[in-house]
Amino acid sequence: MDHVEAGQVRQVRCLLSGVGHVGRRLLDLVQIKSDYLRTARRLDLLLVGVADSSGAAACPEGLDLAEILARKRKGLGVAGLPGFGQPGRTTLDLVESVRADLLLEASPPNLRDGQPALRWVEAALERGLHAVLANKAPLVHGYSHLVQLAADHGVQLRFDATVAGGLPVINLGQRDLAGAEITALEGVLNLTTSLVLGGMEERGLSPAQALAEAQAAGHAEADPALDLEGWDAAFKLVILAQSVLGIPARLSDVAVEGISLVTTDMLKQAAARGRRIRLVARAERAGGGYRLSVRPTPLPLSHPLAQLTSQQMGVLFQTDVCGEVSAAITEETPMPTAFAMLRDVLDICACPGAGS
Amino acid sequence: MDHVEAGQVRQVRCLLSGVGHVGRRLLDLVQIKSDYLRTARRLDLLLVGVADSSGAAACPEGLDLAEILARKRKGLGVAGLPGFGQPGRTTLDLVESVRADLLLEASPPNLRDGQPALRWVEAALERGLHAVLANKAPLVHGYSHLVQLAADHGVQLRFDATVAGGLPVINLGQRDLAGAEITALEGVLNLTTSLVLGGMEERGLSPAQALAEAQAAGHAEADPALDLEGWDAAFKLVILAQSVLGIPARLSDVAVEGISLVTTDMLKQAAARGRRIRLVARAERAGGGYRLSVRPTPLPLSHPLAQLTSQQMGVLFQTDVCGEVSAAITEETPMPTAFAMLRDVLDICACPGAGS
Repeated sequence: MDHVEAGQVRQVRCLLSGVGHVGRRLLDLVQIKSDYLRTARRLDLLLVGVADSSGAAACPEGLDLAEILARKRKGLGVAGLPGFGQPGRTTLDLVESVRADLLLEASPPNLRDGQPALRWVEAALERGLHAVLANKAPLVHGYSHLVQLAADHGVQLRFDATVAGGLPVINLGQRDLAGAEITALEGVLNLTTSLVLGGMEERGLSPAQALAEAQAAGHAEADPALDLEGWDAAFKLVILAQSVLGIPARLSDVAVEGISLVTTDMLKQAAARGRRIRLVARAERAGGGYRLSVRPTPLPLSHPLAQLTSQQMGVLFQTDVCGEVSAAITEETPMPTAFAMLRDVLDICACPGAGS
Repeated sequence: MDHVEAGQVRQVRCLLSGVGHVGRRLLDLVQIKSDYLRTARRLDLLLVGVADSSGAAACPEGLDLAEILARKRKGLGVAGLPGFGQPGRTTLDLVESVRADLLLEASPPNLRDGQPALRWVEAALERGLHAVLANKAPLVHGYSHLVQLAADHGVQLRFDATVAGGLPVINLGQRDLAGAEITALEGVLNLTTSLVLGGMEERGLSPAQALAEAQAAGHAEADPALDLEGWDAAFKLVILAQSVLGIPARLSDVAVEGISLVTTDMLKQAAARGRRIRLVARAERAGGGYRLSVRPTPLPLSHPLAQLTSQQMGVLFQTDVCGEVSAAITEETPMPTAFAMLRDVLDICACPGAGS
């Protein structure tokens, strides 16, 4: 970000990696909120580069967001953007060749090794770009390394959009509970599994029908097994464990069990015992550290997470000196997740050390 | 705060105004968390002055917190602290005569005009002290003026402890939802009324019995009418309206109705209709602004605020682009409220511009 006088509008040159459900909403948001951004925040978020699976497009004066969105609605990639698109180029090419302040990483997560996004985020931080992630995978596979890289290069790494969509779970844990000891953390962090369990329980849908509905609403991962088998929730728990609980957790530290064995009968039997089954990600004190698990859990109806509707995600922190804090969000589209990315961008821009 | 090298422990000289339920817990907390403060935050919070209704005590090298707490447990004021206490002195005297970085204002709120604490906070900001408030009254009567004073003198005014105890409602609204339009805000912000309604509903207590329990737990205001007649919740709503919704609300803008007319029969009838009566503070869009009210409200059981236990406070934000966000806290003692003051202190100290 260039140095500007107080009151002047500051240009923030952004690269967007991934133009799926979240990336598209983020472009929507930047348009919807452009007055707020310019007037209240004195910011002009300029999209100087964008990449999707087709390739990339770049323009130092800023690409036309409406044009990109119109193409995506037609199922066309950004590589075909007249005058600016180039097939086969990647986010890495953008990071290496386009002058920018900030990388917005919203490409699909790769469970196995976090690549290629991990490399993209590394390259961005090394070149002095701030990074805002909605993609969980680079954090799961490279959290400590990325935090160190950001510190070494004096830039910020933010990722509030990676856990529970628009709910500021990372902010709550890292910032509002700093200094409190978190004795247990529980979350319903995956919307797809709640939608599937809710659809089975409340409307008698088959798991496949319920999943199809969640996919149609844009909530499910491209590979639904990531949701149903608990991996998406486990990713999020690993990120929380590292960033909020401060432990060097890996995916292999989480005991993971998905919802594929949960039947309508089991849901009914639980209900008859005054319980609701939800896929709960949990960290509880064990020895000097925490025991991590993701599993279908019959919660008593008085439990804050049992009270969530199937459209909600939520989290519960048990603490030593700040009581028991819970928070929940109702997300009918991925717009709040995109908003969480914008929130991170605004936080970065508000920090006095963020510009140059 | 004096300039210190990175890694060195920074002394933050604090004045504490009010040593009641919250002030005492804050002193407890500073003791309990001293290792965290020194090691993780590189901070040494030094209490250089303290005032209560008996008078004040001051010592530039720092007062002994354990000694103050021991006196208070015996019902003795700080004016009698051997060597340091002076009867009849006030927080204003401390602000004017003791070199300090920060005023912690936790004296009992004065509904009528916010005084004398409003004058104390003004004096502190004018002298370049940051101010952290648990006392709502100065904000209700002088919000805009105090915000302006803080800006003029390059210091911070923080008050997350004033609304819903340890729940970071101000932080959520001001920071996590910045850029989203809040179309409605609802809160159960007063614990005493929930305890009274809950005690009547669940255990058949009389309103007087239920109130006595809340007072014994240290939750009720010194004057319980402030709780029962809805004024405490209205104070909090005015603070939220000003700080989160950005409107110049006054107490006279809030339609206030307390719970004194709510009977056990009314609670039973509501329950029979699947509703739970809680004292709800509400801001809803009306014309270009918001309509503000505090009143006993029969909430459907599916409403997030109806699901709160009588030990919980909670808030619900309806937004344009961040879905519906709710948060709740279980507070069994005022410790989380004191923690919210510490959170504000840590935020101030983390800000690069906070020192000198």
